Amino acid sequence: MKTISIDKSHGGTQGVYVSRSEACDCDMTFAVFVPPQAAEGNCPVLWYLSGLTCTHANVMDKGEYRRLAAQLGLIIVCPDTSPRGDHVPDESDNWQFGKGAGFYVDATEPPFSANYRMYSYITDELPRLLAAEFPVDMDRQAIFGHSMGGHGAITIALKNPDRFRSCSAFAPISHPSVSGWSKPAFRKYLGADENTWRAYDACSLIEDGHRLPELLVDQGTADSFLEDGLRPDELRQACEAADINLKLRMQEGYGHSYFFISTFMEDHLRWHAQRLRDRK
Amino acid sequence: MKTISIDKSHGGTQGVYVSRSEACDCDMTFAVFVPPQAAEGNCPVLWYLSGLTCTHANVMDKGEYRRLAAQLGLIIVCPDTSPRGDHVPDESDNWQFGKGAGFYVDATEPPFSANYRMYSYITDELPRLLAAEFPVDMDRQAIFGHSMGGHGAITIALKNPDRFRSCSAFAPISHPSVSGWSKPAFRKYLGADENTWRAYDACSLIEDGHRLPELLVDQGTADSFLEDGLRPDELRQACEAADINLKLRMQEGYGHSYFFISTFMEDHLRWHAQRLRDRK
Repeated sequence: MKTISIDKSHGGTQGVYVSRSEACDCDMTFAVFVPPQAAEGNCPVLWYLSGLTCTHANVMDKGEYRRLAAQLGLIIVCPDTSPRGDHVPDESDNWQFGKGAGFYVDATEPPFSANYRMYSYITDELPRLLAAEFPVDMDRQAIFGHSMGGHGAITIALKNPDRFRSCSAFAPISHPSVSGWSKPAFRKYLGADENTWRAYDACSLIEDGHRLPELLVDQGTADSFLEDGLRPDELRQACEAADINLKLRMQEGYGHSYFFISTFMEDHLRWHAQRLRDRK
Repeated sequence: MKTISIDKSHGGTQGVYVSRSEACDCDMTFAVFVPPQAAEGNCPVLWYLSGLTCTHANVMDKGEYRRLAAQLGLIIVCPDTSPRGDHVPDESDNWQFGKGAGFYVDATEPPFSANYRMYSYITDELPRLLAAEFPVDMDRQAIFGHSMGGHGAITIALKNPDRFRSCSAFAPISHPSVSGWSKPAFRKYLGADENTWRAYDACSLIEDGHRLPELLVDQGTADSFLEDGLRPDELRQACEAADINLKLRMQEGYGHSYFFISTFMEDHLRWHAQRLRDRK
């Protein structure tokens, strides 16, 4: 692991790091905020997964998480959204597929299966690196994200219920198997058999018996991706049918950008901090 | 004036606008945050001037001012740092001169004098536009900024003591007539006669009798521009000699970036809000 930059902020340190990823067969960059409480002992970890076109930097620059993470004693980890590098297959004119659009799946279809293994990177490889290199209490983890990263957070939490104490999302892609902007990507990463897509679709995972105790979702009503791309109503129906306690808050007049995310960041950090408070 | 974008954020609206500037003979972009209190009446205005290489967007994205501005009822105005456009003379390989480096002066030397008139734009043209188009109480104005924009804020406040109720800065360029990164720009904008530079130099203006009642300055001790570029000690000496109440806070371990600015943004907003509270 190599440090790209480290800056003092809100009493803690915001670092950017790069490490060789075996899962993705490339160098991967990620950001970690360490709060001042880490000087006295390992801190709980909150993972933030970003949306389409983003890198680690968007939420680091615009998410406004450091002030409260420093108060609450949370380590915030912000991974990239896809493999990177000249050797990584891509469709450079398509922002909904390839680089910046890994969708947190392990691709099975060549040529993408050689690098697009973001599920393994996020759930296995990066946690091991984090545990080795940072003052983290890996018994206290939570996860959240935005849009494609909201999809990532919910699906990863559903599939790893013993690892994450809490999960939340800003404007998540709730049913990617049927949305116009994610269906073509799923086909290219996972193949034509749509049954294999269910393992990476929040609504399908819930239908198939995966469970979370509760879920906080904020969704702007002025979000231009609301109807086709995000489908919060389908998430609501899936959660109702499965008795999952979904707190879905429709936020009047808010859009899809970080102007929206930063507004409700505090609520999400407090939600997670409350559930991460007690040591096991 | 044309609206480029408008987004709901923290209960208010963050807009980006463009208007034709007579002073700079080009289109100029700027950002305005309007807090929810504007629904009930005109709000006080806090100007933020940005540093070298920045546009209106850097502080809008990374400054973390909206949460508290929405609480305190402040309109935040974030202008660009120089004229823009293909017809504007520039040195594209020099980040300390030309585009992104207007230094808030009215240039007198051709060819720069045709466009680089940021002092007039900020103190005359943009205020008139603001008063006409936004719910502002122009009797309640304050100003702050970062680095080159800290220089801009302090010099503009010193020269317009009746207009601004308060002034503060993050890591301001305090003595640009003698700093390595500003001296060449002053020579090109203002000519070889260094006496003309004094009108745009905080330390010189104070020596020449300009006054502020008080001044808040935060400065990171790990700022790589501290010694030559910023020179807070010279500002301290000038303020002491002139009985200006300077609150200079050396912030241990902080650098020059928005990780530093966002950390202390809240203190500056509260400082200004307190002084802007009462209507005339």
